[in-house]
Amino acid sequence: MNTKITSALIYTPDGLITGDICITDDRITAVGTAPEGFIADKVISGSEKMVIPGLINAHTHIYMSVFRNLADDLSFDDWLFGNILPREDRLDTEQAYKWSCLSCEEMIRTGTTTFMSMNIFPNADSRAAHDFGMRAVITRGLVGEDRNDEGGIRRLNEHLRDCELYKDDPLISFKLGPHAIYSCGEDYLMFLIEKAKELHQDFHIHLSESRREVEDCIKKTGKTPVRYLYDMGFFDIPTCAAHCVHITDEDIDIFKEKNVSVLHNPKSNLKLANGIAPVKKLLEKGVNVCIGTDSQASNNTLNMFSEMNFAALLQKGVYEDPIVCSADEVLKMATINGAKALGMDKDIGEIVAGKKADLVIIDLNSVNLTPKNDMVAALVYSSNGSEVNTVMIDGKVVMEEGRLVR
Amino acid sequence: MNTKITSALIYTPDGLITGDICITDDRITAVGTAPEGFIADKVISGSEKMVIPGLINAHTHIYMSVFRNLADDLSFDDWLFGNILPREDRLDTEQAYKWSCLSCEEMIRTGTTTFMSMNIFPNADSRAAHDFGMRAVITRGLVGEDRNDEGGIRRLNEHLRDCELYKDDPLISFKLGPHAIYSCGEDYLMFLIEKAKELHQDFHIHLSESRREVEDCIKKTGKTPVRYLYDMGFFDIPTCAAHCVHITDEDIDIFKEKNVSVLHNPKSNLKLANGIAPVKKLLEKGVNVCIGTDSQASNNTLNMFSEMNFAALLQKGVYEDPIVCSADEVLKMATINGAKALGMDKDIGEIVAGKKADLVIIDLNSVNLTPKNDMVAALVYSSNGSEVNTVMIDGKVVMEEGRLVR
Repeated sequence: MNTKITSALIYTPDGLITGDICITDDRITAVGTAPEGFIADKVISGSEKMVIPGLINAHTHIYMSVFRNLADDLSFDDWLFGNILPREDRLDTEQAYKWSCLSCEEMIRTGTTTFMSMNIFPNADSRAAHDFGMRAVITRGLVGEDRNDEGGIRRLNEHLRDCELYKDDPLISFKLGPHAIYSCGEDYLMFLIEKAKELHQDFHIHLSESRREVEDCIKKTGKTPVRYLYDMGFFDIPTCAAHCVHITDEDIDIFKEKNVSVLHNPKSNLKLANGIAPVKKLLEKGVNVCIGTDSQASNNTLNMFSEMNFAALLQKGVYEDPIVCSADEVLKMATINGAKALGMDKDIGEIVAGKKADLVIIDLNSVNLTPKNDMVAALVYSSNGSEVNTVMIDGKVVMEEGRLVR
Repeated sequence: MNTKITSALIYTPDGLITGDICITDDRITAVGTAPEGFIADKVISGSEKMVIPGLINAHTHIYMSVFRNLADDLSFDDWLFGNILPREDRLDTEQAYKWSCLSCEEMIRTGTTTFMSMNIFPNADSRAAHDFGMRAVITRGLVGEDRNDEGGIRRLNEHLRDCELYKDDPLISFKLGPHAIYSCGEDYLMFLIEKAKELHQDFHIHLSESRREVEDCIKKTGKTPVRYLYDMGFFDIPTCAAHCVHITDEDIDIFKEKNVSVLHNPKSNLKLANGIAPVKKLLEKGVNVCIGTDSQASNNTLNMFSEMNFAALLQKGVYEDPIVCSADEVLKMATINGAKALGMDKDIGEIVAGKKADLVIIDLNSVNLTPKNDMVAALVYSSNGSEVNTVMIDGKVVMEEGRLVR
């Protein structure tokens, strides 16, 4: 199957060009000029359109769309213990699947083609991703006291069953998801380090999200959460660390040394009153920073355009530095940096020949993108996500001119 | 002309209700239940829709859409002196009118019915507002050294000509717009205070926007900009003060004492690296805070839904307080508080019988507004503005089901 997107403005690693994109099956075969003799089975006009790599939402919990706009403007304890947890307790896997589907639709409509989700209902988000044809990294949230903790073992086994179920789906992969240092005992974390080595799976964890998490850890261990995990050998496994709001300069050095990727969630960090992650410092030290929306319970949307907008503007205001987090840097956070974090940068995150065809086509005929000046700035500062017109994942069109295909 | 919006979810000062809205000519005549015998010439179905008061963008410069995405991620001097001012110098009134029209379309499409603009091309934004049927407060940016400054007198005269031109348009009104304390000499400001009394026009000024403005003022006068204006008697004229990022507790007391309204521009303040206004403190003191987008040169959109989202989330993160700036408070900032700032709260800002029919109808059948939990939270936290379906200003439909009527 050959597809050609013609005469589009294309965001490539070398900047914006105007030209064609050729796709054969699941891969991009040419960018710029179609090779002689390339006969397209399907032609998509790129006129007045811009093509970007599919956006990568590196941290979310997709079943939580059910909690959207349900418990806002509350203290953390009211929110979590008074509202979210009791309601979560009444959900079942089938409902979680339904709400995960809603999130998949929301993500596709706003240009996300790949996501990483931490769940408590295995086979809910994996099944939704499969049914919507999305690329996904699935992580069962793992909570446990030690290696003999029945709940901890059950959760890990649920994860392993999900891995088995989708082992033949090329779009779905798995990481181990220890939930956080405050919900996993030290022995359980050690056990997961062993399992990660055995299974060849990387880590996805919430880390240094709240001031309290850090204070409690220092009180208990004399170390920051990052230092605590470092000393345990946790970061010998490639790690995606979500939030990282309350981190020290030494923590940042550890991230750099151990190649930890930071999953930046600017809106959730604000909404839950955790604060603002020191992204400027992370970038200065060369740490890989990518972007996640977190869930609708603390955002309340999975719109990566809005998340990019916050990522770009926040750091400028906080550091009183208008140059930090340029539009181009932020679009890279939402694409190639996300791919690096997920260990998929050989395959996705950029529009280059040889990579998978995860592409988002944006309609530039929108009043809020007019006049057409710097179109990368337009995406980060002016777009609201509603301009996403057509979405292709792994070479297959999943949304065409605003209509979901599946 | 009688219009009826039927069976809609309606945001009223007493909370959300489901019912009808009756409109006769330019005014709302009933909210909730239609009076017996009310015969509608036009019926708009409110099923699966929500009606809110038209949003009020209290601070912008609408001709500046031409600069959208043109000079981003630059230092303030590069941005202003290297890019904006030289290009502004090459614009003429006809071009400014065209770009103002673009802004009017952008505002209507995202639910803004009233705006206050500071211009340098008189009869560009007033003419655009008139042609698009928008409610507008027009302020010529006034710059001058003293009362004999030729440029300062010319600018004031341009303003007065514009006032004369639109004196019969019930939707267009005027304020005096001294640009800022650093661009107006003390004698020119004193002169404008006299003029304001003579013309019965209020003030619209940029105030304490940047750290430098405040430092320079203290160096020169020994006072903060707010104190400097207070001592001059400036605030004896009702004042709308834009930005107010770098203000002291004493400044806030002055705002309260003199009933100064703060026009909060969260995104512009971040983007130009000025910082974050202490809105929490302003609210605690009972100062009237409303919302403006500033222009596309520093935002880069006039989308009030995005601005509300920033307004609600930023203060939570900065003050580590999840309760501050609730969705309801922020929606009020963007409606009734804006009306109060502009001196129009007798006529607009709320859906109540007797007020003008400035109404925005929002389509709730959007994946990002699903499930339908707290729908005020939905507007502030989940909407991206694309759900605006129909817009009515002064009883006239200006956008119907996504299509501009004029």
